[in-house]
Amino acid sequence: MANKLRVGMVGYAFMGAAHSHAWRTAHRFFDLPMTPELTAVAGRNEQAVREAAERMGWNSVETDWRRLIERDDIDLIDICTPGDTHKEIALAALAAGKHVLCEKPLANSLAEAEEMAEAAARAAENGVLAMCGFTYRRTPALTLAKRFVDEGRLGSIRHIRAQYLQDWLSDENAPLTWRLDKEKAGSGALGDIGAHSIDLAQWVTGQRIEGVSALTHTFVTERPVGGEFVGLGGHGADADAEKGPVTVDDAAIFSARFSDGAIGVFEATRFALGRKNAMRLEVNGSEGSIAFDFEESNIVHYYDARDDAEAIGFRRIIVTEPEHPYVGHWWPTGHGLGYEHGFTHQVVDLVNDIAAGRQPTPSFADAAQVQRVLDAVERSAENASTWREA
Amino acid sequence: MANKLRVGMVGYAFMGAAHSHAWRTAHRFFDLPMTPELTAVAGRNEQAVREAAERMGWNSVETDWRRLIERDDIDLIDICTPGDTHKEIALAALAAGKHVLCEKPLANSLAEAEEMAEAAARAAENGVLAMCGFTYRRTPALTLAKRFVDEGRLGSIRHIRAQYLQDWLSDENAPLTWRLDKEKAGSGALGDIGAHSIDLAQWVTGQRIEGVSALTHTFVTERPVGGEFVGLGGHGADADAEKGPVTVDDAAIFSARFSDGAIGVFEATRFALGRKNAMRLEVNGSEGSIAFDFEESNIVHYYDARDDAEAIGFRRIIVTEPEHPYVGHWWPTGHGLGYEHGFTHQVVDLVNDIAAGRQPTPSFADAAQVQRVLDAVERSAENASTWREA
Amino acid sequence: MANKLRVGMVGYAFMGAAHSHAWRTAHRFFDLPMTPELTAVAGRNEQAVREAAERMGWNSVETDWRRLIERDDIDLIDICTPGDTHKEIALAALAAGKHVLCEKPLANSLAEAEEMAEAAARAAENGVLAMCGFTYRRTPALTLAKRFVDEGRLGSIRHIRAQYLQDWLSDENAPLTWRLDKEKAGSGALGDIGAHSIDLAQWVTGQRIEGVSALTHTFVTERPVGGEFVGLGGHGADADAEKGPVTVDDAAIFSARFSDGAIGVFEATRFALGRKNAMRLEVNGSEGSIAFDFEESNIVHYYDARDDAEAIGFRRIIVTEPEHPYVGHWWPTGHGLGYEHGFTHQVVDLVNDIAAGRQPTPSFADAAQVQRVLDAVERSAENASTWREA
Amino acid sequence: MANKLRVGMVGYAFMGAAHSHAWRTAHRFFDLPMTPELTAVAGRNEQAVREAAERMGWNSVETDWRRLIERDDIDLIDICTPGDTHKEIALAALAAGKHVLCEKPLANSLAEAEEMAEAAARAAENGVLAMCGFTYRRTPALTLAKRFVDEGRLGSIRHIRAQYLQDWLSDENAPLTWRLDKEKAGSGALGDIGAHSIDLAQWVTGQRIEGVSALTHTFVTERPVGGEFVGLGGHGADADAEKGPVTVDDAAIFSARFSDGAIGVFEATRFALGRKNAMRLEVNGSEGSIAFDFEESNIVHYYDARDDAEAIGFRRIIVTEPEHPYVGHWWPTGHGLGYEHGFTHQVVDLVNDIAAGRQPTPSFADAAQVQRVLDAVERSAENASTWREA
Repeated sequence: MANKLRVGMVGYAFMGAAHSHAWRTAHRFFDLPMTPELTAVAGRNEQAVREAAERMGWNSVETDWRRLIERDDIDLIDICTPGDTHKEIALAALAAGKHVLCEKPLANSLAEAEEMAEAAARAAENGVLAMCGFTYRRTPALTLAKRFVDEGRLGSIRHIRAQYLQDWLSDENAPLTWRLDKEKAGSGALGDIGAHSIDLAQWVTGQRIEGVSALTHTFVTERPVGGEFVGLGGHGADADAEKGPVTVDDAAIFSARFSDGAIGVFEATRFALGRKNAMRLEVNGSEGSIAFDFEESNIVHYYDARDDAEAIGFRRIIVTEPEHPYVGHWWPTGHGLGYEHGFTHQVVDLVNDIAAGRQPTPSFADAAQVQRVLDAVERSAENASTWREA
Repeated sequence: MANKLRVGMVGYAFMGAAHSHAWRTAHRFFDLPMTPELTAVAGRNEQAVREAAERMGWNSVETDWRRLIERDDIDLIDICTPGDTHKEIALAALAAGKHVLCEKPLANSLAEAEEMAEAAARAAENGVLAMCGFTYRRTPALTLAKRFVDEGRLGSIRHIRAQYLQDWLSDENAPLTWRLDKEKAGSGALGDIGAHSIDLAQWVTGQRIEGVSALTHTFVTERPVGGEFVGLGGHGADADAEKGPVTVDDAAIFSARFSDGAIGVFEATRFALGRKNAMRLEVNGSEGSIAFDFEESNIVHYYDARDDAEAIGFRRIIVTEPEHPYVGHWWPTGHGLGYEHGFTHQVVDLVNDIAAGRQPTPSFADAAQVQRVLDAVERSAENASTWREA
Repeated sequence: MANKLRVGMVGYAFMGAAHSHAWRTAHRFFDLPMTPELTAVAGRNEQAVREAAERMGWNSVETDWRRLIERDDIDLIDICTPGDTHKEIALAALAAGKHVLCEKPLANSLAEAEEMAEAAARAAENGVLAMCGFTYRRTPALTLAKRFVDEGRLGSIRHIRAQYLQDWLSDENAPLTWRLDKEKAGSGALGDIGAHSIDLAQWVTGQRIEGVSALTHTFVTERPVGGEFVGLGGHGADADAEKGPVTVDDAAIFSARFSDGAIGVFEATRFALGRKNAMRLEVNGSEGSIAFDFEESNIVHYYDARDDAEAIGFRRIIVTEPEHPYVGHWWPTGHGLGYEHGFTHQVVDLVNDIAAGRQPTPSFADAAQVQRVLDAVERSAENASTWREA
Repeated sequence: MANKLRVGMVGYAFMGAAHSHAWRTAHRFFDLPMTPELTAVAGRNEQAVREAAERMGWNSVETDWRRLIERDDIDLIDICTPGDTHKEIALAALAAGKHVLCEKPLANSLAEAEEMAEAAARAAENGVLAMCGFTYRRTPALTLAKRFVDEGRLGSIRHIRAQYLQDWLSDENAPLTWRLDKEKAGSGALGDIGAHSIDLAQWVTGQRIEGVSALTHTFVTERPVGGEFVGLGGHGADADAEKGPVTVDDAAIFSARFSDGAIGVFEATRFALGRKNAMRLEVNGSEGSIAFDFEESNIVHYYDARDDAEAIGFRRIIVTEPEHPYVGHWWPTGHGLGYEHGFTHQVVDLVNDIAAGRQPTPSFADAAQVQRVLDAVERSAENASTWREA
């Protein structure tokens, strides 16, 4: 069994499906030192979890995540539940000596996140490793963007602009879901999608956000309870349906200063009609720029200021070459990857790190730092946008 | 076993990897009436085929495809070998009562293709079904394009322009591979990639190509033998290496007339420097147009002539909505798919058709018709581009 | 002479060339009630102003703008000088009963702008009209965007995001010019280009900015004096050249709340390497969105949420149809316009308004309101980004 | 008068307006050795030509082009009439010692074009110069493309693909105009727009087309007589209106071989619904590629195969830098030009050549070579697409 990594997953909705696919697929395309085994999945509703296990390929089920953690035949706990449960599960798993992969945002509050980071640091001393699932880091185009910064291609970084634009709440009758409930979700667009932008901006540039000024807004303050979900949004909620309060932000805007002098502007919203998953990042340095939009996820645009003056322009790099991160393991040049490949690459890196006894990234400490920024954003928004340190 | 579809695959290179992924994955995201089982894979080199089976998830191996066909525990033969072997394998499989999925192009000559189509027609009478793997039909954006034509959104079709542009042979020192050998590959860019364009143009428009005028060209007539393959192309072939002849076309251009009055222009090349997998299709009708480029495979552009005059323009449809073909089974809106999803969708459709006793498409007859066009192209090119019926 | 509009222009640099072209050209393509006459141009250096007059087509010259205003044969004063001179010239011209076209930003301070607006209001009572040159309003794609909002196509406006990105100061050795001197220019990127974004955002949406939170930054605090100007930036400044202080912002970021509930995010910079004149505006409403980028100035993207679900996407409208604003007077469909056409359209509208005795827009009051926003941005930036009313 | 170039123009429709603008404007932005004077314009209808002269800025009128040619105060005849009149006017003008600028296509037949080229060659011996108005050569992005080829950036040229796509005849009720009458126009899409593609493809690559295989088609064989023209197309023609025959091609497709071994594919149509003026040119060489689309006329895309493998991709060059052809005379970086600038640049080059006694390009001989290709296309199309030498 030494060459297996036995996984127990908690939760089996959208994120659970993506994670399951990654656990099933990684070793089919990459040489891994340990082969993931989909040992067990946990969920409260036994019938539902059995059906999910069957569909997603898990060998067994549990109806209590505590039982999952107690099992001897599991090496790693993969947490795919809403944010309000992360801390309790992660702490129990780490205490039981299980490695942990926890979906983002790490927690619903800074205090929780810091407690988790501390627990992870202690566990790491015993070789028990924890990672937070900011999966977009493993989109090859973004991994390449970071490589360009690390190689010095951009020179000194001046500007970061990060937008995460979706539109699935534009319809005022889209139903009230757990993602609109502060208790479950912690925050709205800010934590759900803005957290990705924060993580990526810091990771790609290698700079930390040191302070922010923020504005948040809720456009639709109550929504119908019930209604059918379709895609991320929903249709057909009855106009006469009972309504419940939206307790999170619909949109968040903030400016930021970074540790090495760059300035940034961020926007996260689920009301940008027509933008489906426009997770955009642009970085301008003294020697070059990069620009990315997840709506064209296999492309990164790169501007090299050293190109000769008559032939200079953003290069549209199709990130499918053997020289590019991850993609040489997949298809020939020009045959693009999809959303779920980031999850597969995350498994690849995590398994390699675990086998090597190496801290995977982003660590819980990294994720707690993102939470610190989220917290500063909320504090500034509540205080007339006044500057707040992160 | 009634709810299993037991698959035996021949060949395990690039196409084999894509097919294996599809067989493993389809039932994880779609409700299928039969669950694919990766029963056995066949290849001549025992060690290599064992390693491939391990990596790709096949339960057993054979070193002779004939043995695979003889096995009682296999329902379907999946042919992923070069074109010169398709006929023999397919005929044997059909004769043995196995369903067949055969990679494109169906054969290396029209005569072979027609023989295969006849065999498939006979087999179908006994409920044994055959399909050719023109996978791009299952790219959701292209499936949607066809739906638009079928719905009458484009009106009467006038223009088809189809380009399939790659660049992996631009380097004169890219090594000589089986794809450059007429014996193995049948033709060059024409059959390898042009065949996709022909199939799609006919399928999307619902019109058959009735005649063509063509020009083919070989830019680099000999290439180094050996050298390391990287991606589709290759690097580092020694300039002093022995050279062998390229016996296929590097590029093919042809014009066409379609059965309902449309005219078309086609180009296939592996020398379009900078174009990695630009499989493009544009169709202009009397009421609308659609345009697609595989380099942005999740997008189709649609022009509706009935839009009001001041607000008219190509609509950039991100084909990730629940209303779109296939994609509702995957990720939320805006989270794109990759190259391999077409293969998974192909499995979905094929399994559903087999379970229903329904002819899958494209049938061998459909594929033979593509071969008829390829044949007409070659005949025209050899005869001063003079018009040839297809 | 009743059907002439006799123009006297002050200043003859970049803006002077653009204005001259517009005065010469407007009546060649549009039916105007009065034909502009390029009566005189004023500048301090007699030889230079004579050469400019010859080149730009002005009939006479003055070396003192006061003399220009005194002339009986001039109906309108066109102010194309740096912002520190606007107030004095405009007030004198209005007092002398001359109509005024004044380049933006209206002034270098809010106090000046308000004084000018008051003067313009008084002059208007006597039929003397004043207009500020926020020329981008007359880019057909942006005029169309406003029309779409006015027609209700976007529904209720929620988001505005406006970026004005240039890169001509990225080079640390680009020379110190008047645009980097607070005395001459008032502010940096904020007033020079951010002012355009503010005006457009308010004009297109029909909403006023009521408050802001801002951050400004100067990346390069001193620059070489002298050096040759090329384009907007400059080359070849000696690394050993004497340096002088940059006293304006290099970049400005701010969030805003609009009068009818929309929220906005703005960024203006001349350090976005690779972005040459990316004046971008996106507006998201409850029923539709529009997006514009001046780097593709003949295009506007429009999303109509009422399109059917499988065929929905941003429409790429090429704004060159007869139904579109202004463009029917120029070239056939698809033959785009350039930067200077906005100036010509500005002349068309201004001449029509003057002939009709109608207040042209933007009025000095409109421009003073932009100045009010600029002022609030500066006050917020100086006060830890704390919210400031505009 | 030595420093004036006195121009007489024949015809004053769309092309006349564009040429007039260029004659008025060139010396305002460029230093010219001779200043154009808009001396006289000729047209048959006196009232109409007087109105045109007034609007377009011509000093006098003639109602017979022969009288224009006889005038002593005219140095150059600018021919802006339909193609059936080009030969007679040009020959008379050259015989009278006037320089000639003649709109494209040079003539309606090869025989006429060759006669014109011979006349121009004879005239040139006496210092009388002739030029054909393939204006797109002076679009800065295309001039830059040629420069790249000339500099060797593309290496050895392999592929040319040229599309000229419009849609103004898509509506079957668009009215019958002179452009649809073979007598007046010579041919349809082929000569009207395909001629541009041919000229550009040969000029940019420096290779001549040596042979072609072609297909032409007329989709709508009769159209209503009368009806109102709007833009290039028309609206509101009565469905019951009398109809007349369309005697030209609606679309032309052809493949070509070039003198140095490149192959090309061309398509010209006015039925590509949604494409407004998509004059596209892509050239692939052994070292690089360029791609252009007039719908984004200020952009050229350039791929440099020598870029490092992880950072390679088409560069989107915004052709507005001081280093780029022509544009340094206009606006700052990023402020694009429009359709008519090509005409202004044509005047600049022509005036410089005339002043220098240098043959301007394209010469009538160059234009006759284009006509030779058009002729070969028509001969091939009439002969089952069989290859025809050009």
